[in-house]
Amino acid sequence: MVKTRRSRKTGLPPGTLVHIGEEKTDRVRITLVRYNEHEVHEEELDGLEHLDEISRGCRDDCVTWINMEGVHQPETIEKIGRVYGIHPLTLEDIANTEQRPKIDEYEDYLFVVLKTFTYAKNHYEPEMDQISLVLKSNTVLSFEERSDEICNTVKNRIRSGKGRIRKAGSDYLAYCLIDAVVDHYFNVLEKLGESIELLQEQLITSPTKMTLQQIHQMKRQMIQFRRSAWPLRESVGSLLRGESAAIQKATLVYLRDVYDHIIHVVDSIEIYREMLAGMIDIYLSSISNRMNEIMKVLTVIATIFMPLTFIAGVYGMNFKYMPELEWHWGYPAILLVMATVATYMLFYFRKKKWM
Amino acid sequence: MVKTRRSRKTGLPPGTLVHIGEEKTDRVRITLVRYNEHEVHEEELDGLEHLDEISRGCRDDCVTWINMEGVHQPETIEKIGRVYGIHPLTLEDIANTEQRPKIDEYEDYLFVVLKTFTYAKNHYEPEMDQISLVLKSNTVLSFEERSDEICNTVKNRIRSGKGRIRKAGSDYLAYCLIDAVVDHYFNVLEKLGESIELLQEQLITSPTKMTLQQIHQMKRQMIQFRRSAWPLRESVGSLLRGESAAIQKATLVYLRDVYDHIIHVVDSIEIYREMLAGMIDIYLSSISNRMNEIMKVLTVIATIFMPLTFIAGVYGMNFKYMPELEWHWGYPAILLVMATVATYMLFYFRKKKWM
Amino acid sequence: MVKTRRSRKTGLPPGTLVHIGEEKTDRVRITLVRYNEHEVHEEELDGLEHLDEISRGCRDDCVTWINMEGVHQPETIEKIGRVYGIHPLTLEDIANTEQRPKIDEYEDYLFVVLKTFTYAKNHYEPEMDQISLVLKSNTVLSFEERSDEICNTVKNRIRSGKGRIRKAGSDYLAYCLIDAVVDHYFNVLEKLGESIELLQEQLITSPTKMTLQQIHQMKRQMIQFRRSAWPLRESVGSLLRGESAAIQKATLVYLRDVYDHIIHVVDSIEIYREMLAGMIDIYLSSISNRMNEIMKVLTVIATIFMPLTFIAGVYGMNFKYMPELEWHWGYPAILLVMATVATYMLFYFRKKKWM
Amino acid sequence: MVKTRRSRKTGLPPGTLVHIGEEKTDRVRITLVRYNEHEVHEEELDGLEHLDEISRGCRDDCVTWINMEGVHQPETIEKIGRVYGIHPLTLEDIANTEQRPKIDEYEDYLFVVLKTFTYAKNHYEPEMDQISLVLKSNTVLSFEERSDEICNTVKNRIRSGKGRIRKAGSDYLAYCLIDAVVDHYFNVLEKLGESIELLQEQLITSPTKMTLQQIHQMKRQMIQFRRSAWPLRESVGSLLRGESAAIQKATLVYLRDVYDHIIHVVDSIEIYREMLAGMIDIYLSSISNRMNEIMKVLTVIATIFMPLTFIAGVYGMNFKYMPELEWHWGYPAILLVMATVATYMLFYFRKKKWM
Amino acid sequence: MVKTRRSRKTGLPPGTLVHIGEEKTDRVRITLVRYNEHEVHEEELDGLEHLDEISRGCRDDCVTWINMEGVHQPETIEKIGRVYGIHPLTLEDIANTEQRPKIDEYEDYLFVVLKTFTYAKNHYEPEMDQISLVLKSNTVLSFEERSDEICNTVKNRIRSGKGRIRKAGSDYLAYCLIDAVVDHYFNVLEKLGESIELLQEQLITSPTKMTLQQIHQMKRQMIQFRRSAWPLRESVGSLLRGESAAIQKATLVYLRDVYDHIIHVVDSIEIYREMLAGMIDIYLSSISNRMNEIMKVLTVIATIFMPLTFIAGVYGMNFKYMPELEWHWGYPAILLVMATVATYMLFYFRKKKWM
Repeated sequence: MVKTRRSRKTGLPPGTLVHIGEEKTDRVRITLVRYNEHEVHEEELDGLEHLDEISRGCRDDCVTWINMEGVHQPETIEKIGRVYGIHPLTLEDIANTEQRPKIDEYEDYLFVVLKTFTYAKNHYEPEMDQISLVLKSNTVLSFEERSDEICNTVKNRIRSGKGRIRKAGSDYLAYCLIDAVVDHYFNVLEKLGESIELLQEQLITSPTKMTLQQIHQMKRQMIQFRRSAWPLRESVGSLLRGESAAIQKATLVYLRDVYDHIIHVVDSIEIYREMLAGMIDIYLSSISNRMNEIMKVLTVIATIFMPLTFIAGVYGMNFKYMPELEWHWGYPAILLVMATVATYMLFYFRKKKWM
Repeated sequence: MVKTRRSRKTGLPPGTLVHIGEEKTDRVRITLVRYNEHEVHEEELDGLEHLDEISRGCRDDCVTWINMEGVHQPETIEKIGRVYGIHPLTLEDIANTEQRPKIDEYEDYLFVVLKTFTYAKNHYEPEMDQISLVLKSNTVLSFEERSDEICNTVKNRIRSGKGRIRKAGSDYLAYCLIDAVVDHYFNVLEKLGESIELLQEQLITSPTKMTLQQIHQMKRQMIQFRRSAWPLRESVGSLLRGESAAIQKATLVYLRDVYDHIIHVVDSIEIYREMLAGMIDIYLSSISNRMNEIMKVLTVIATIFMPLTFIAGVYGMNFKYMPELEWHWGYPAILLVMATVATYMLFYFRKKKWM
Repeated sequence: MVKTRRSRKTGLPPGTLVHIGEEKTDRVRITLVRYNEHEVHEEELDGLEHLDEISRGCRDDCVTWINMEGVHQPETIEKIGRVYGIHPLTLEDIANTEQRPKIDEYEDYLFVVLKTFTYAKNHYEPEMDQISLVLKSNTVLSFEERSDEICNTVKNRIRSGKGRIRKAGSDYLAYCLIDAVVDHYFNVLEKLGESIELLQEQLITSPTKMTLQQIHQMKRQMIQFRRSAWPLRESVGSLLRGESAAIQKATLVYLRDVYDHIIHVVDSIEIYREMLAGMIDIYLSSISNRMNEIMKVLTVIATIFMPLTFIAGVYGMNFKYMPELEWHWGYPAILLVMATVATYMLFYFRKKKWM
Repeated sequence: MVKTRRSRKTGLPPGTLVHIGEEKTDRVRITLVRYNEHEVHEEELDGLEHLDEISRGCRDDCVTWINMEGVHQPETIEKIGRVYGIHPLTLEDIANTEQRPKIDEYEDYLFVVLKTFTYAKNHYEPEMDQISLVLKSNTVLSFEERSDEICNTVKNRIRSGKGRIRKAGSDYLAYCLIDAVVDHYFNVLEKLGESIELLQEQLITSPTKMTLQQIHQMKRQMIQFRRSAWPLRESVGSLLRGESAAIQKATLVYLRDVYDHIIHVVDSIEIYREMLAGMIDIYLSSISNRMNEIMKVLTVIATIFMPLTFIAGVYGMNFKYMPELEWHWGYPAILLVMATVATYMLFYFRKKKWM
Repeated sequence: MVKTRRSRKTGLPPGTLVHIGEEKTDRVRITLVRYNEHEVHEEELDGLEHLDEISRGCRDDCVTWINMEGVHQPETIEKIGRVYGIHPLTLEDIANTEQRPKIDEYEDYLFVVLKTFTYAKNHYEPEMDQISLVLKSNTVLSFEERSDEICNTVKNRIRSGKGRIRKAGSDYLAYCLIDAVVDHYFNVLEKLGESIELLQEQLITSPTKMTLQQIHQMKRQMIQFRRSAWPLRESVGSLLRGESAAIQKATLVYLRDVYDHIIHVVDSIEIYREMLAGMIDIYLSSISNRMNEIMKVLTVIATIFMPLTFIAGVYGMNFKYMPELEWHWGYPAILLVMATVATYMLFYFRKKKWM
């Protein structure tokens, strides 16, 4: 899960475009959405021949959004980068899906890296994908590792024209995408919460070796999840302190909302982690408790039968002169003695609450 | 307890009013309190038709407080928001009862989210509710998730006219509400302290599996409680540094008092958490101690009866020539030997303090 | 120990004077000390009728110190507060003995809350009391929860006229009181150190269940103690940064000395806490070691006597044709075999260092 | 591994050149690379006679890079230091291979200490070497403890002329060297990740005493590795805040990239450490689980055979009047009773899931 | 070890000179060293009559260093303090050997407290002594608790005139003393490292109860050691930020070197502490492992002999009609059965790797 494939790049000069990660889409799909308050134009680009034209044809009053699904074609990313004047290091980060989430400020654009989590069907662990955003004035470029529900949600909102989105600029569009990603984290939280509850129940009713391993697996998922949310917190926080020209003041209040959500997510992760730590305690003490149970059974059995066997052994001795052996009621008497001893022992253990 | 229902909102545009949480009141009740040093006017509003009028009819020398019980009617919140010029994101936060406590500054108002804890009768765990405040000049809007004792306390103080409240402005009213919430935390602390003491006693006299689970439950309650107090500390702290225009200088010294109380609460929670951690240690060591007890019983029994049974076994052998068997005093002699062995063993264990 | 009685105040308006805590003195005693370089005037005030007069009669070249023992008479505190112009919240804090230590700056005075620890005779745990100081120019008001040795020490120093105290202002007097309190912490440290050493010895020679509970009790005392020292560190630190007008520059170097002492105390507490944590480790491992001891005894006994009993059992069988039984030397031979087996076992265990 | 040989220097005046560490190269090799956009000149220096000449013959438009492999000849380092005006303390740090990674700013140069890790063949633990850089305008001096792949990579890049390197200044060259070192860390991460996965498998299938020791060894490697990456993070971070004149603005964006990589490395180390901590938990619980298994076997055996042996013992008694012994079917009957008891016990244990 | 004797001072006015600590030298020795680039004058002062003269006779171009061995004569310290105008609190700190290391700035001098560690012969734990420095322009006063190797090293350097020391001012001398103290820490580190390695070996080959106690003792030494190094880091760090006039700019680069060394020491201590923590884990798991070993032996023995003894018991029963007993080959047959059972058990345990 935490394996890195980064070593593939060792020794290459910085700014070399190499795709790092798995290919998660069959083909690279590029869509163009251009909108202002009054109209929306949507188009799927077959090639990138017209890109230059598109980049120039953007008037001040409308927002251009170019979305690319699949980041495993370095040459395509390079082409877009050249047309929009994006730094080679940014392009390198887009192609490398092992980035930490971050918000980097460049001279004329803002570069955002985000992580999304999706639960594939019948899968226990979420898959993590990367979405990169380049925010320029009037233009947003987004690069998805896998074609994702998230961008579609925002596209639909543009199409429908509800809310502020059609009236606001490219920074609001970028905000909407970030917000959509962070909103999705609540779904992941919910799934994780459910898994933890299941584990908790299992822990109390029938803990097995597997339970501990699952708890530790959950813990690892938490770390990964936190690793995706935590750096975002800092980055958004620094945007909030008004350090970037790319964000308009009216959008800042929305960013603060996203910031709150991220803190909520990070908080919940912390609580989950503490719960998991507590569950490990409970698991370990349940092993010890089980041991106690086993030892009690052994001790009860041994304590009852050892004296009895000893008594039987005494009267199994072959001494010539053992008067008891001659008595007529010797046998029943000794059986009675045995029963008394056993009964006393049982009472003793009952009193000690061992039975 | 830490479950989130937030996912219900995934995909909706920001600023969409959706109630998140349970409906905790039967009907939404809106009350208006308007007061200055000389008079108090109190009224329950049936609808919101006159709200515009009310909002305009507020003279500079009196404070208007509108309190709403129940936040599950988005349309009502929206209406109030429109009249008082409140940002959609604020309204969204009011309707969403899964907010972290916070104090957000907007251009012309201060938005405060607080958490209250109430112990329902016969309930072990406190219920957490949300109170949101909007503080404008001369006006305070408060939104309670459930009709709460806290607002009534403050209302009574206004009615009676004791203290500074009638002479001071809307910021002092907001302070009073925050102070009342924080004051309530001391009650929760007291209840938690009692529960911990109960657990502690139980731990020492008769620890069971349940004890550990209750300790962990308490720990979780602590986390939740701290989660409600901790962010408040930061928020009030930032108000204290004089960053907000909404708070008058004379009120700051009162806020510092609240700040001290919050730190007191957070401190106590930390101490409780350390006590709980210590209790887990004691619990785990009590399991091991119990195991030792059990093992001692087993070992004592085995060590006494095994040699005795062996001796009995020896004289149960059927060899033709075993001189001891023929002796007249053989049987009593061997019984004496056995008694000696057993007595020695008992002394040995007594010396080792195993009995 | 960490119980709060604060809830008694829930719902009361801020600034309401309620005594929180136990009554620790029989009667409230108020003493007045007025001194300058040349003379000292000391007086016990019966009532507060002349207070106004006293407060006015204070010339610039002398320092007035009013000390009050016992804080359970709200009306007396209120009277003093009115005469000296003290904020209601300060008075509330003086009467509430569950304050955190702190130094609050008000417009024309400095308010200091300190905690003292005294070991009552034959008592294991120290008792915690509160001393509050109000430092105005030329005047110091001190409020002791219990009549304490600490103020007497300082009074004696004034009487004797040794050192700087008679030449310096009211800020130096306040410093002396704070210094005396912090100096006392070293006594507490020493007592705690002795208790820890005792526990440590007990832990190594004869650890019992009680030992663990005592360690945890010590840990709790540490927390409480740190809680009294830690906030003081911050407060004195902020005074040191020269933020207060109430402290003259010449006194600052003395405050830095107090600051060093507090850090020393906090440091020592941390070391004690780590030692206690280590002692818990040692305790837990000593339980496991004891278990090992017990198990060894059991195993040795069982391993020696089980084979022997088996052999005896074999020759106790009643088969018609068992040639060994007929031999004349059969019995001694078999005893020899048994002795050999037992000796071998003993050697084996000695080699394994189990005996 | 964490042993220090530093004590060799105790008592010597500061700035004394003493090689601390092992000799890792046979002979000291000094190479000179001089390049600009158009040409590259490469030369191996036999002695340092011409160094003065070289240092003067450097025009503004070309970059001179002097690389020294092996730092165990203090006199050579001293010579270079004299020619290039390097502070004695810097030279001392170059010769001392037990430096922490750091970036120190001197008046006219920047001094960088880096750590590299290489896995020797058939070795489990990586070897750590030190590379020091001195960055002056137009000149970079590098000192390698061992002849390393890293500098060669950069040399090749200069030779081929690909990328920005030939067009940029000495600061970009220094950046390239730092970047190459940090890039190598990803290889180390990968190896560590593989080792951890191997350990994890071993832990689940067949944990032995060695497993725990290997986990702790891994943990120590992590600490060492983090110790090499963490201080770099701070140092590069401070360069990023634009505090140094030695770095041109165009190079800063590249440094930010290195900074991101370092954070990525540090993050991964943290995750690995948490995984190792979890593995220790699993190991400890696996010991306890094994104990439970063993105890179950013992208890099952004892519980089945003790009652049976007792029954056999009863009918081995020699009482005169034991009616059962006379019965014709007594023997089979008692065998049946024994079988019943044993079967019942087996059922009981199966129900308890002990078998 | 962490005992304080500070309480001796409780109640005394601040600035009272009381020696706290043990007397570590027989007599107080005061030496005077006066040097400039050209000459060195060294003298042992018998009394302090000429001190005034000495303090006045100091020209601008030479440095006067007065070193005092033994701090248990308050009157001598007081005399020096009066002549050189040192604040009473500084003198108090010099006489009190329980100071934290610190660097305090006074108006016309810098006061430095350092801790040294020396290993006495045949001693396991290092002894901690205190060195205080007062740095004035042209003058350094040093106060050693015990006559120490450290000051001699620096004296020798002055005598020999090697290095910068004779050319530089009093601040460089002070630096040299601090550097010598910190350099000595590396020796302590080395010793500690060796002890840890010894313990580690012992832990793996033959852990005993003592091992754990020694680990905890090492841990305590680490804490003490860190406590001496850590505050120095902060103090030197604040000097580095150029806040003091007593340090010339040329000396700052040397201080940065000391700063690096201190961080190195603190880092190594942290690593040692983590190693010790890991060793505790290993120790605890070794106890559990040993328990498992013991339990295996017991279980193997019990499982083999219990069935055998049962079988022997069966044929020891006295039923009239037991056909097997009459058979001629009954006895050997039953012995064969027993051997088979035992062999099967042994195979079973071998398969389970219990033997």
